[in-house]
Amino acid sequence: MDIPAVTLDHDRTRRCGFPEAIFGEGKSLATLRGIIAEQLARGDEVLVTRVCAETAAALCAELPELRHTELARTLRASPQNATRKTVGKVVIVTAGTTDLPVAEEARETLEWMGVATTMVHDVGVAGPHRLPARLAEFAGADAVVVVAGMEGALPSVVGGYLPCPIIGVPTSVGYGANFGGLSALLSMLNSCAANVAVVNIDAGFKAGYMAGLIATRSGR
Amino acid sequence: MDIPAVTLDHDRTRRCGFPEAIFGEGKSLATLRGIIAEQLARGDEVLVTRVCAETAAALCAELPELRHTELARTLRASPQNATRKTVGKVVIVTAGTTDLPVAEEARETLEWMGVATTMVHDVGVAGPHRLPARLAEFAGADAVVVVAGMEGALPSVVGGYLPCPIIGVPTSVGYGANFGGLSALLSMLNSCAANVAVVNIDAGFKAGYMAGLIATRSGR
Amino acid sequence: MDIPAVTLDHDRTRRCGFPEAIFGEGKSLATLRGIIAEQLARGDEVLVTRVCAETAAALCAELPELRHTELARTLRASPQNATRKTVGKVVIVTAGTTDLPVAEEARETLEWMGVATTMVHDVGVAGPHRLPARLAEFAGADAVVVVAGMEGALPSVVGGYLPCPIIGVPTSVGYGANFGGLSALLSMLNSCAANVAVVNIDAGFKAGYMAGLIATRSGR
Amino acid sequence: MDIPAVTLDHDRTRRCGFPEAIFGEGKSLATLRGIIAEQLARGDEVLVTRVCAETAAALCAELPELRHTELARTLRASPQNATRKTVGKVVIVTAGTTDLPVAEEARETLEWMGVATTMVHDVGVAGPHRLPARLAEFAGADAVVVVAGMEGALPSVVGGYLPCPIIGVPTSVGYGANFGGLSALLSMLNSCAANVAVVNIDAGFKAGYMAGLIATRSGR
Amino acid sequence: MDIPAVTLDHDRTRRCGFPEAIFGEGKSLATLRGIIAEQLARGDEVLVTRVCAETAAALCAELPELRHTELARTLRASPQNATRKTVGKVVIVTAGTTDLPVAEEARETLEWMGVATTMVHDVGVAGPHRLPARLAEFAGADAVVVVAGMEGALPSVVGGYLPCPIIGVPTSVGYGANFGGLSALLSMLNSCAANVAVVNIDAGFKAGYMAGLIATRSGR
Amino acid sequence: MDIPAVTLDHDRTRRCGFPEAIFGEGKSLATLRGIIAEQLARGDEVLVTRVCAETAAALCAELPELRHTELARTLRASPQNATRKTVGKVVIVTAGTTDLPVAEEARETLEWMGVATTMVHDVGVAGPHRLPARLAEFAGADAVVVVAGMEGALPSVVGGYLPCPIIGVPTSVGYGANFGGLSALLSMLNSCAANVAVVNIDAGFKAGYMAGLIATRSGR
Amino acid sequence: MDIPAVTLDHDRTRRCGFPEAIFGEGKSLATLRGIIAEQLARGDEVLVTRVCAETAAALCAELPELRHTELARTLRASPQNATRKTVGKVVIVTAGTTDLPVAEEARETLEWMGVATTMVHDVGVAGPHRLPARLAEFAGADAVVVVAGMEGALPSVVGGYLPCPIIGVPTSVGYGANFGGLSALLSMLNSCAANVAVVNIDAGFKAGYMAGLIATRSGR
Amino acid sequence: MDIPAVTLDHDRTRRCGFPEAIFGEGKSLATLRGIIAEQLARGDEVLVTRVCAETAAALCAELPELRHTELARTLRASPQNATRKTVGKVVIVTAGTTDLPVAEEARETLEWMGVATTMVHDVGVAGPHRLPARLAEFAGADAVVVVAGMEGALPSVVGGYLPCPIIGVPTSVGYGANFGGLSALLSMLNSCAANVAVVNIDAGFKAGYMAGLIATRSGR
Repeated sequence: MDIPAVTLDHDRTRRCGFPEAIFGEGKSLATLRGIIAEQLARGDEVLVTRVCAETAAALCAELPELRHTELARTLRASPQNATRKTVGKVVIVTAGTTDLPVAEEARETLEWMGVATTMVHDVGVAGPHRLPARLAEFAGADAVVVVAGMEGALPSVVGGYLPCPIIGVPTSVGYGANFGGLSALLSMLNSCAANVAVVNIDAGFKAGYMAGLIATRSGR
Repeated sequence: MDIPAVTLDHDRTRRCGFPEAIFGEGKSLATLRGIIAEQLARGDEVLVTRVCAETAAALCAELPELRHTELARTLRASPQNATRKTVGKVVIVTAGTTDLPVAEEARETLEWMGVATTMVHDVGVAGPHRLPARLAEFAGADAVVVVAGMEGALPSVVGGYLPCPIIGVPTSVGYGANFGGLSALLSMLNSCAANVAVVNIDAGFKAGYMAGLIATRSGR
Repeated sequence: MDIPAVTLDHDRTRRCGFPEAIFGEGKSLATLRGIIAEQLARGDEVLVTRVCAETAAALCAELPELRHTELARTLRASPQNATRKTVGKVVIVTAGTTDLPVAEEARETLEWMGVATTMVHDVGVAGPHRLPARLAEFAGADAVVVVAGMEGALPSVVGGYLPCPIIGVPTSVGYGANFGGLSALLSMLNSCAANVAVVNIDAGFKAGYMAGLIATRSGR
Repeated sequence: MDIPAVTLDHDRTRRCGFPEAIFGEGKSLATLRGIIAEQLARGDEVLVTRVCAETAAALCAELPELRHTELARTLRASPQNATRKTVGKVVIVTAGTTDLPVAEEARETLEWMGVATTMVHDVGVAGPHRLPARLAEFAGADAVVVVAGMEGALPSVVGGYLPCPIIGVPTSVGYGANFGGLSALLSMLNSCAANVAVVNIDAGFKAGYMAGLIATRSGR
Repeated sequence: MDIPAVTLDHDRTRRCGFPEAIFGEGKSLATLRGIIAEQLARGDEVLVTRVCAETAAALCAELPELRHTELARTLRASPQNATRKTVGKVVIVTAGTTDLPVAEEARETLEWMGVATTMVHDVGVAGPHRLPARLAEFAGADAVVVVAGMEGALPSVVGGYLPCPIIGVPTSVGYGANFGGLSALLSMLNSCAANVAVVNIDAGFKAGYMAGLIATRSGR
Repeated sequence: MDIPAVTLDHDRTRRCGFPEAIFGEGKSLATLRGIIAEQLARGDEVLVTRVCAETAAALCAELPELRHTELARTLRASPQNATRKTVGKVVIVTAGTTDLPVAEEARETLEWMGVATTMVHDVGVAGPHRLPARLAEFAGADAVVVVAGMEGALPSVVGGYLPCPIIGVPTSVGYGANFGGLSALLSMLNSCAANVAVVNIDAGFKAGYMAGLIATRSGR
Repeated sequence: MDIPAVTLDHDRTRRCGFPEAIFGEGKSLATLRGIIAEQLARGDEVLVTRVCAETAAALCAELPELRHTELARTLRASPQNATRKTVGKVVIVTAGTTDLPVAEEARETLEWMGVATTMVHDVGVAGPHRLPARLAEFAGADAVVVVAGMEGALPSVVGGYLPCPIIGVPTSVGYGANFGGLSALLSMLNSCAANVAVVNIDAGFKAGYMAGLIATRSGR
Repeated sequence: MDIPAVTLDHDRTRRCGFPEAIFGEGKSLATLRGIIAEQLARGDEVLVTRVCAETAAALCAELPELRHTELARTLRASPQNATRKTVGKVVIVTAGTTDLPVAEEARETLEWMGVATTMVHDVGVAGPHRLPARLAEFAGADAVVVVAGMEGALPSVVGGYLPCPIIGVPTSVGYGANFGGLSALLSMLNSCAANVAVVNIDAGFKAGYMAGLIATRSGR
């Protein structure tokens, strides 16, 4: 199958363990339809991220096996007869309720990878007693994804409590001197906790993928 | 007394409650000597900030009533026969040991204002159990000065535990994407804690002065 | 009552003296309705900030005790039989008429806290005789909130005239090299007046809350 | 005379009314000596700016007609038998004493152009009564140069009091979120006073030259 | 007449030679109507800048003496029986045709001040023979306003050809690394031509006002 | 023919080898119509860039010789009886499918210049085997245009494989810390490959023009 | 043992699996001596990072069990009778030879954690055949640390070839538009490879620590 | 020969037409000595850039065939019996005398490539008659390197006069709002001249190399 101006990375599952996830933003309906069909034909699990509501609806109307998660802006589909057992454990933490869409993108990504997830919501640092009250839910986590906007302080605090790798995702949630997520990004990069690495602003997919790689390796 | 290119604000004590503090950076020895002598002659308490070690030594040699605090880079002197009782309570908190010089500048400022201070050091968020263990020391505080570099998360956490106004001082402590204190500054400005206001990077004097104003008013 | 993805900070009134104010931006109608109902049931004064006009109208239709202030983008409600006397005095100053919405958010916040307010409008530095003409209105102020965009110079001037703490709120009013409020923000952070601290760009709520904390403490 | 890698603008006095001023930074002793000698031979008034102390001393030893002003970092010389009467009036204002070197560079430039100058020092906005007390000294000014670091608010205030053009010079005086003069630069560019234009950070020469052009034209 | 939240600067004409120009952005129809009526009643020339098309149409329908210049986004009106002769000469130069709106705002401002203007359009540096071909039109100019986006090089070149003060106005015209006018702004601030001062990005009013002040003073 | 506020550079074909390309953004329909007509009357090849869909449709309806390429946002027309043979070879490379519009603008520009082009799409560095597999298509290239957003790494890699000049075009494709193309721009400017020069973000026309100049000169 | 202004995190080994590493920059000799002695007394492995040469020499003279690695700027010491077997495998890759110090800091950190390391040096993207030639050395890696300055493109390419998590460390190596490591930082954050997370500029310790956490977990 | 931590790109001359140039900054004396010896042994022309004076002197003392150009900070050496004829023509233009070191690095690079050069110095835009007076020296140029700091306007003007490709090199020459070369860099990227591409700030080598590639291809 030949999709104009697209060079699919057919070798990725063998090389990297997972097929290519499709970045939906800026891709035409025709291009997305072609890539999804090709991946399903090859027996790959499909994940499309950052797909707008209109495009998602149009694709779901054509391909009934697609499932759209509106909050996460994702589309997913499994090839026929696919069965996978779930491995590992990743906890996804949000500082506030407005960080939910990015957290959901991470969760969708981890489910696509076959990794079990636990969600801990709305435990930002301004209510500092909320996180310690829920530490039991982190037991046995292979990695933690922390999603936070504004001052982006939560990954440092989570990192201080836990021994496992933390993936910080700054979000563009906030206003004024937030500068589109810059404040949370710089905070996480300068975290005094040694076990915090960072991905791009609002990059729920990438955070989920990194955490998923760690969890699936731990579970070998 | 006339000091070239200087227009002293003689009216400030009456108008603002405290005499003018002298910003030492970039002022010549002669200028500083003139201002200090004039303030002492008028019966003012003297505070010079950001004075370099050489200038401080030269001034102390001439004016034995001056006391130099090297870590804080301050000079202070009291007019003869001055007696003041101490009022209020301000707690000064540091995230790490490298934040000490800025904290000391705040402490010197508060002592110059006649406000009692308590120091709580090295309780940054990466060791999150350290701050709760010391909350008793904050009892009765009129205001808290929080000094932090790197990700600058500590004011949010302190603000979450306490009911009083918090003055955050970002420091230039850190490296890389710290960008000279920018990351801590943006963090504090974007704090999700409602009781946090911010002063300039490394501005120990200003933080101390703001906290001191609050404490002396509370104590009226 | 359980609201999805929300971890309410029920303990805040005891810990901080005031209940949690609700940041309305990005929260769904259902989430806001749930939180407001829960706060009213617990006997808390309710303040919602940054609520859009549509959401405000919908909530007011359902909960008649809500009062919407359009310019301030706030919703407020009091629990039944609530009576509070007003304490303290905070003056809110604007540089220009386009700074009004942020000033109104500060005023709503202070009223929610039970603090008396005085408004002094349109006294920016380019008409330098306007502020001195109104200094009498500042007599006895516990704190002053100064709201200014463009060059953000007004807090320094107000700070020079008055002995009390000044909370500067930079606004995103302006164009060109204003860069969304950055110029006013940097001005206020670099203020040569010692009694000026700063909150985030357009952060009327935070400025009001800080000033209110100072005023209610002074009035103890 | 031929100076390597230099293309002198011999036509400038006829075209622009004044000879070329020499930017001293980064020019070798030999290059500076060559340019100065050529200008004096042509009967031009000489002004060298931003010359370091060592180079200035070496050039003064060779060319006794040169006068070095250390604070301004300038060198000046007049051709033999030059007589000029002074025209116009420019007032140079500083916010603080550390702004002096830039103000002195402006003054040297104006004297080189034959324009009379008045200095008003240390009248920054944090002592807001200082400027009004000295307004009489501005009477009849053709233009005003305002030199200010930190929050750079002074040009707006001066512009509000006076009818003539104001040239603002932001200085790199300050620390922290001053970012090398950026805060004062943005303030002046966003001034709400209509009669304020701005030159580069620390550009005393350029401010003096602009003001001098206005003053010499007014005096035609 | 009392307009809510507005403190009119009634004294400005006496103090500064011209009445207050009204910044239209963000002001309500009622506020603008009130200010215009008051100014006309006092016998002032009226200039409103940055007024949107809808507001302009509504005001013109009510006040037939208002004239709307759509490209410049200005409104103007003269008090009855006003007669003014035109003085001085200001040349307004644009680099490209997309710089026209800002140039027109400058022209409207100068006409409001009673200063004669000459327009020289589309002579940017990439067609370097265009400007020299039109130098005759600059003869006798008191000041020149240069409006340029993209690399903002034109003020330097104009400044090199002419002896009078140049006011550079960077525009937000461009794309990519233009960053909303930042590239043109920095270019003009760093101009190697000594006779260039700068105003805010897109600030046609301010550039016109500065040039007008110079022209009216020259013509005294 | 006289178009208001436009100074056409009639001499450019003689001076530079190609007529002026027309930047369509911000130009009115009347202005564009006038310029196109004039160029066709003079026998020039016409290229309009960054023209919006509505304007393009309106112009095509009036001037049937215009051809609109929607993806590239260009309009082109040849004078009657024009015949040109194609010279040289430029390869245009994209990192991802969302870089296509900028690549198409470069291709349109090269065709307007009469230069042959080869397109190599979607060979970004995250699938590192894709580029080497297609190196044969670069044989004999005079220059290569590389269009890439996100981390902008592709020009360095292409530059490492090939001996010819590479023109890097950063695109604004991406999100978060991409900051509108800044990350790709800085990457390309800091390329460790010696044969990479850079044009503005999204500047497909400029990259095509530079590569076309190199190719037409090589083919002399 | 009580060290002034230091609150040691004694519980960290139990909580996080490794003792606290000591950030040497800005700590006095006395403070460092105290912390090291206390850690050795408690039986902890010691790692000091960013220690200057003078301080390192002084400490080694007092504590002979300390080993100083000059290029990495680290000090290490093991408690008496410590024996640890090495686990896992982390590959550390550099783009150029000037990235060595940061890579060495990562290597020291991993050795302190007891993780085996492999070094692959000087395989930056401008010599694109160098990395593929050495892919065999990555076999079985649990994680890869990629250290790169300038355009910071190497993590994307490494990430494209390998299935394991990649930790990118931007370095401040470069000049001009590198802006102290900003260009490499933004590149890595915008990497189109899904398996790349990022730490602070020059943060060799943090990259090593994250990779070590992944490797030790994989090896459980 | 094996140099620690160095992976030499032995294949580059065959692949790219020229051997690898050596970036001297941050490389040890031993590393540089090893690379130079290896290149000479292989019969390559040697170019080392950004070498400090001490290292250059030490290497010249050991390897007498090395020639050091202090202003350009380069070292060069030819293998024994090397003879090359010069091809093409590149003109190198500077805006001011302080741009010389970067221009010299470009000239050294072009000589190393065997390309003839012409230097045109000190023709910046503030003396706009200087460049046209020297246009004859550009006749027949294959490419032009334009080196400029401050406002970086010169490439646009040169590009407007000439038909060949222009490589702009922004320099860090300037002060204040120059921000280390940022203003010149943004100017050149936003050049309205279509034939201007840009390299990194102060990147004389890269500009020379790009121009040399164009010149040697034109001369085929």
